[in-house]
Amino acid sequence: MSLNPVIEKLGRPIRLALIGGGPGSFIGRMHRSAARLDGRYDMVAAVLSSNPEKSRSAGLEIGIPADRAYSDVNDMLSAEAARKDGADAVAIMAPNLYHHPYAVAAMKAGFDVICDKPITNSIEDAEEIVKVAEETGLVFCLTHNYSGYPLVRQARAMVEAGEIGDLRLVQVEYVQGGKADESKKDDPTAHRGWKYDPEKSGPSLVLGDIGTHAHQLLRFITGKEISELSAEVGSIVPGRIVHDFAGAMLHLEGGARGMFWVTQAAAGIENSLKIRISGNKGSIEWWQEIPQRLNYYPLGQPAQVRTPNGPGTYPASARVCRVVAGHPEGFPEAFANIYSDAAEAIAARISGTKPDSLALWFPTAEDGLAGMQFTFACLKSSENGGEWTSL
Amino acid sequence: MSLNPVIEKLGRPIRLALIGGGPGSFIGRMHRSAARLDGRYDMVAAVLSSNPEKSRSAGLEIGIPADRAYSDVNDMLSAEAARKDGADAVAIMAPNLYHHPYAVAAMKAGFDVICDKPITNSIEDAEEIVKVAEETGLVFCLTHNYSGYPLVRQARAMVEAGEIGDLRLVQVEYVQGGKADESKKDDPTAHRGWKYDPEKSGPSLVLGDIGTHAHQLLRFITGKEISELSAEVGSIVPGRIVHDFAGAMLHLEGGARGMFWVTQAAAGIENSLKIRISGNKGSIEWWQEIPQRLNYYPLGQPAQVRTPNGPGTYPASARVCRVVAGHPEGFPEAFANIYSDAAEAIAARISGTKPDSLALWFPTAEDGLAGMQFTFACLKSSENGGEWTSL
Amino acid sequence: MSLNPVIEKLGRPIRLALIGGGPGSFIGRMHRSAARLDGRYDMVAAVLSSNPEKSRSAGLEIGIPADRAYSDVNDMLSAEAARKDGADAVAIMAPNLYHHPYAVAAMKAGFDVICDKPITNSIEDAEEIVKVAEETGLVFCLTHNYSGYPLVRQARAMVEAGEIGDLRLVQVEYVQGGKADESKKDDPTAHRGWKYDPEKSGPSLVLGDIGTHAHQLLRFITGKEISELSAEVGSIVPGRIVHDFAGAMLHLEGGARGMFWVTQAAAGIENSLKIRISGNKGSIEWWQEIPQRLNYYPLGQPAQVRTPNGPGTYPASARVCRVVAGHPEGFPEAFANIYSDAAEAIAARISGTKPDSLALWFPTAEDGLAGMQFTFACLKSSENGGEWTSL
Amino acid sequence: MSLNPVIEKLGRPIRLALIGGGPGSFIGRMHRSAARLDGRYDMVAAVLSSNPEKSRSAGLEIGIPADRAYSDVNDMLSAEAARKDGADAVAIMAPNLYHHPYAVAAMKAGFDVICDKPITNSIEDAEEIVKVAEETGLVFCLTHNYSGYPLVRQARAMVEAGEIGDLRLVQVEYVQGGKADESKKDDPTAHRGWKYDPEKSGPSLVLGDIGTHAHQLLRFITGKEISELSAEVGSIVPGRIVHDFAGAMLHLEGGARGMFWVTQAAAGIENSLKIRISGNKGSIEWWQEIPQRLNYYPLGQPAQVRTPNGPGTYPASARVCRVVAGHPEGFPEAFANIYSDAAEAIAARISGTKPDSLALWFPTAEDGLAGMQFTFACLKSSENGGEWTSL
Repeated sequence: MSLNPVIEKLGRPIRLALIGGGPGSFIGRMHRSAARLDGRYDMVAAVLSSNPEKSRSAGLEIGIPADRAYSDVNDMLSAEAARKDGADAVAIMAPNLYHHPYAVAAMKAGFDVICDKPITNSIEDAEEIVKVAEETGLVFCLTHNYSGYPLVRQARAMVEAGEIGDLRLVQVEYVQGGKADESKKDDPTAHRGWKYDPEKSGPSLVLGDIGTHAHQLLRFITGKEISELSAEVGSIVPGRIVHDFAGAMLHLEGGARGMFWVTQAAAGIENSLKIRISGNKGSIEWWQEIPQRLNYYPLGQPAQVRTPNGPGTYPASARVCRVVAGHPEGFPEAFANIYSDAAEAIAARISGTKPDSLALWFPTAEDGLAGMQFTFACLKSSENGGEWTSL
Repeated sequence: MSLNPVIEKLGRPIRLALIGGGPGSFIGRMHRSAARLDGRYDMVAAVLSSNPEKSRSAGLEIGIPADRAYSDVNDMLSAEAARKDGADAVAIMAPNLYHHPYAVAAMKAGFDVICDKPITNSIEDAEEIVKVAEETGLVFCLTHNYSGYPLVRQARAMVEAGEIGDLRLVQVEYVQGGKADESKKDDPTAHRGWKYDPEKSGPSLVLGDIGTHAHQLLRFITGKEISELSAEVGSIVPGRIVHDFAGAMLHLEGGARGMFWVTQAAAGIENSLKIRISGNKGSIEWWQEIPQRLNYYPLGQPAQVRTPNGPGTYPASARVCRVVAGHPEGFPEAFANIYSDAAEAIAARISGTKPDSLALWFPTAEDGLAGMQFTFACLKSSENGGEWTSL
Repeated sequence: MSLNPVIEKLGRPIRLALIGGGPGSFIGRMHRSAARLDGRYDMVAAVLSSNPEKSRSAGLEIGIPADRAYSDVNDMLSAEAARKDGADAVAIMAPNLYHHPYAVAAMKAGFDVICDKPITNSIEDAEEIVKVAEETGLVFCLTHNYSGYPLVRQARAMVEAGEIGDLRLVQVEYVQGGKADESKKDDPTAHRGWKYDPEKSGPSLVLGDIGTHAHQLLRFITGKEISELSAEVGSIVPGRIVHDFAGAMLHLEGGARGMFWVTQAAAGIENSLKIRISGNKGSIEWWQEIPQRLNYYPLGQPAQVRTPNGPGTYPASARVCRVVAGHPEGFPEAFANIYSDAAEAIAARISGTKPDSLALWFPTAEDGLAGMQFTFACLKSSENGGEWTSL
Repeated sequence: MSLNPVIEKLGRPIRLALIGGGPGSFIGRMHRSAARLDGRYDMVAAVLSSNPEKSRSAGLEIGIPADRAYSDVNDMLSAEAARKDGADAVAIMAPNLYHHPYAVAAMKAGFDVICDKPITNSIEDAEEIVKVAEETGLVFCLTHNYSGYPLVRQARAMVEAGEIGDLRLVQVEYVQGGKADESKKDDPTAHRGWKYDPEKSGPSLVLGDIGTHAHQLLRFITGKEISELSAEVGSIVPGRIVHDFAGAMLHLEGGARGMFWVTQAAAGIENSLKIRISGNKGSIEWWQEIPQRLNYYPLGQPAQVRTPNGPGTYPASARVCRVVAGHPEGFPEAFANIYSDAAEAIAARISGTKPDSLALWFPTAEDGLAGMQFTFACLKSSENGGEWTSL
């Protein structure tokens, strides 16, 4: 990614309109820095509040001109569609329940979409997004950002190249402690309390927040779908309204097995997303908290530690390394890699050209739908006492 | 353990007779070095083969006098019981199917027993060992050696002291790669092939070999029993005769949940036994491959790395540290700690005195029985499609 | 840094002109992404080649309009100074020998300067930059980017707060392997071969390339100057033209001692910059390759692992954390933190306001001068057989 | 080491007499467990105090019969030499100043010697030990125990096999914090205060305690001698009587360079002995606190992590691995490896046979002499303002 394929194709950056993610939002900041990092987007418009004044002042803080700081999504879509220099694409980082209506409206109005995860709160909504994306031919990019890390791409490339052989086992876990403090009660009525209201955040908070990330990471690296699972979903903190724990045993297509475990209530743990994958020729391990190390255990040979841009890097990984080997990159770059890949796809669509095939590794609506199918299969199995449930 | 309580109580080391574990056996070597390390045992007799000549020559290699190298267990028990300077205790490291008959015979003949794990191949046999141990009042020590590590004892002491608060979550995994090479077929008829014959090695190889270790580690540190589980047990290597994979979701008494995963077929992985335990005030993590580090995550405070004999060490841990802080210890010392604790208990029994209460942290017949109950509950749940099964 | 103080103070981003660092340059890419990441700069002009056509086409690749892609630095300075919307500041990433003339010319023409390290190739040139910066009152920021890492700032804040007590010892090492391959000969005449010509790259390549980084890191965290040193500088690769190794023993003001070691010829090592600092109350360690961990060893207490934005984070560190705890950041963000701090200082100067005092932790001309003094003291000591040499 | 070559050669273990290292001594405990672990020694006699009663009671605690618990070294040597079942060898763990007289007396009386480090307090004394060892043909083993670790032997074997190519660079550091607490003053008159009296502990405490370990480790792995050095030796804790810091820059025979740094006053650090060695084909790193990992960086290939008994293990390392790959060993086993190698050499001498050539990797009197030469060269260079000083 040393060149700027967007400038090459369009002669200008993609014009991006934001929905949600104002100045105080962590995820908003990540989307904005991802849009900025490679010079492939101009952020030109936004809806940051339903209050016009608040939207304008928030817009100014993040560099959106006052006349393009809207207070209603449909107004923005219409106005931007009408401008000659209007937005090409929208980035949705509103609460989960809005992902579906905004994404559908945006695509129907001709905008490519970058959408935060989880894609929706139901399978049906996800299916509709898949359908609209197919019908319109627009780009729909879902920001499962962990698939943007150079060594996650390296892991996938190694699996594809047969370096671990035939898949036998996968273990993925995502352990956080942000909801472990029992003195802080779930409160759907608090400021930003929507996460504690399942109507807004979806049927299972922990699965939506981090379970879909773990699930997508597993699919991304292995290239396999889960065929059936036995799960338990619930809460480990007494009195909790939402789910904070999910565990599952997995069967993957092709016969491999897997273990899946996520929680947001492991006291003191920051953000431990780990995956280990074994084939009949070797195993690999990646840990999000030290993303610049990929452990590789080839059968019968010394263990290796792979690094971004280090010896043995595959092209699919090298193209998302921004630094020379030994200089760490992190979450913002991984997020930006997703954005920049989507930018290449969007520019290709607009210009009627072909994107680099490796740019198409970003997660799409189909991946989001798979996440919803997984979520609901976990819930169903859990309700049925751990019964093995097909996806 | 800087003094020698055995010499103090008995004026001499405990006399130990060995069953199995000859010169070429890894586990035999571990038992012998464990017996030697603290000067609490004299190894005085052994059955190392049913062939008298082989038993004698093997005995000589490991320092057993020719006249006490027997070729039959019952002969040894009788002869040693009759000698004035006869063995006090026997250590059993024969194939799994012999644990039960030899342990029962030894205790009925008045010998304390140190026995390799798994205790038996059935619940009924384990129950009988528990019963005989109770009736005879003899010491029965099961060598779940991981509970001998200084930082595993520290972890238990921290949990007991409330440093992680009320238990919420446990994850334990034991991942090995020794059975990953698919070019080596399971062969029950090969030399030392007994492991591949379920009649000899038990109903589930992976659960007997390492599952019971993981299960005991979980119980040892948390002090909680598993109340019910949903499991899958099987093989990930095509054509395998025995089990090489088991996964389970757990409910613990008191309401905590857990995840359990073991395999012996993760290519390239050596011996990765990991446990993570979260309470409502903090989490701890321990990894067998780097046993001199215990990660402690107190809620809302910086993460800590505890070391053997380092600041904050509890007496239960300090007493099994043989070195000053910063000098690593390993598997042989952990094994020796189990042996030396058992020695203290045996010497106390013989001398009619009391052992240090912290010496009684070694695993016993009850722990072995719990392991069998866990094993069979996993098998039952797996056969019933993951049905939640009480222990 | 959640707000944009530049927009607040100026109503627009700072306009930045680039000197060097075209599309194929690693360090150029880092400067550009650093300028972009927080929306505090617009890159408006550049000199990317002395060939007008090449400068224009390179400019287009990185988003510089053709009419502001100059082929001569003085031309650019004049033209931009004359424009109403001309650049406010210049960023210099040309070969080392040009740092001094371009920086002086830029400041004399009224531009703030962001300059790559080492500041110059001589003490005299560095002194002149210090003088011109003082006289003009302009901002001069030297991109010793490691001081931009959140945990390096945390380390400094901890030292300032007395968490390690009185300084006793420092060890810093910067070990790379990029120049270890002996089959690749130093060639000053090759494309980009200027590094192998001491007239261009300075008196000691290894000290200029990485020694000044290590030296600045030591000074930044400890807040102490080196008073004298005994050093050896030279080459470990036979036939090498330039230096690839330097070692030194250090005396710091206040009585602490130190060890310093840098090389670019340690085969297979990527980029291992490590620092350990001990006071009479504790020690801290930081390693560039895993920058999201800061080891803290308080005397007599358990070791701690500090993380960005984790418990115990000081404000000076928190303000440069872009992510919630547990999500890694890397080199590009550290670089951007230097840029964004400089932006705040530049905006304050232009607007006649005060910057946040914590924004002034970026390295300046004085730091660059100290680096040159250190470099030449090392060379002098080495020439005099390791004689202790004052700085 | 799966067999017992001592029993094979002698039909019995070596009879060992102890000098010093009573029940409360850490190093005494290490020597005793090292003697026990492989069944190659019987500890038959000891001098544990100059007070007969105290020597007897201390002897009983560690299993020495009362009639062979002496109170005078010469008495013991005479008495044991006269017994038919008298000791074969003596192990000296008395304060440093006694190493020389006891070692010389023991060898002159026909005993092989195992001696704690540093060998002596002067070059002359070390030279005499070398001479007496040569003249008598007896075994003199110096317990630089770090050379007993499986991965240290692996490192040496890899260097010998050319896996890192021609030596270019070495860095060794040994950092402890045991003498960092400034509230505890050096007191030569305290119980066990001999370390703070240079007449007893030698010319430089830090160099004798740990500097000679670091020096021996460097020589052991690289197979190279230091030809000259520039050093500084002194104290970083105000008011300290003895040395707690030494740094040196090194020239090795063959042209490689090195850095050396040791301290006992780095607050909070436990026992961090680290070595990194670079040749023109790769680098290796070993860290005592995690001794079961050896990092190997082959030039241009992915980094490797070597483990004891793991893939790629050389015979010289495999023979001192007691466990299967993945089970950690520690300091006691490393110490025991030195003892067991010495046992094989002693048994070979007594029996007039040849030991395994790999058993002769234990440190000898010549290594001790090299340590003294290094120590005094450091002191001389330091006194001469860092002047480069030949060894």
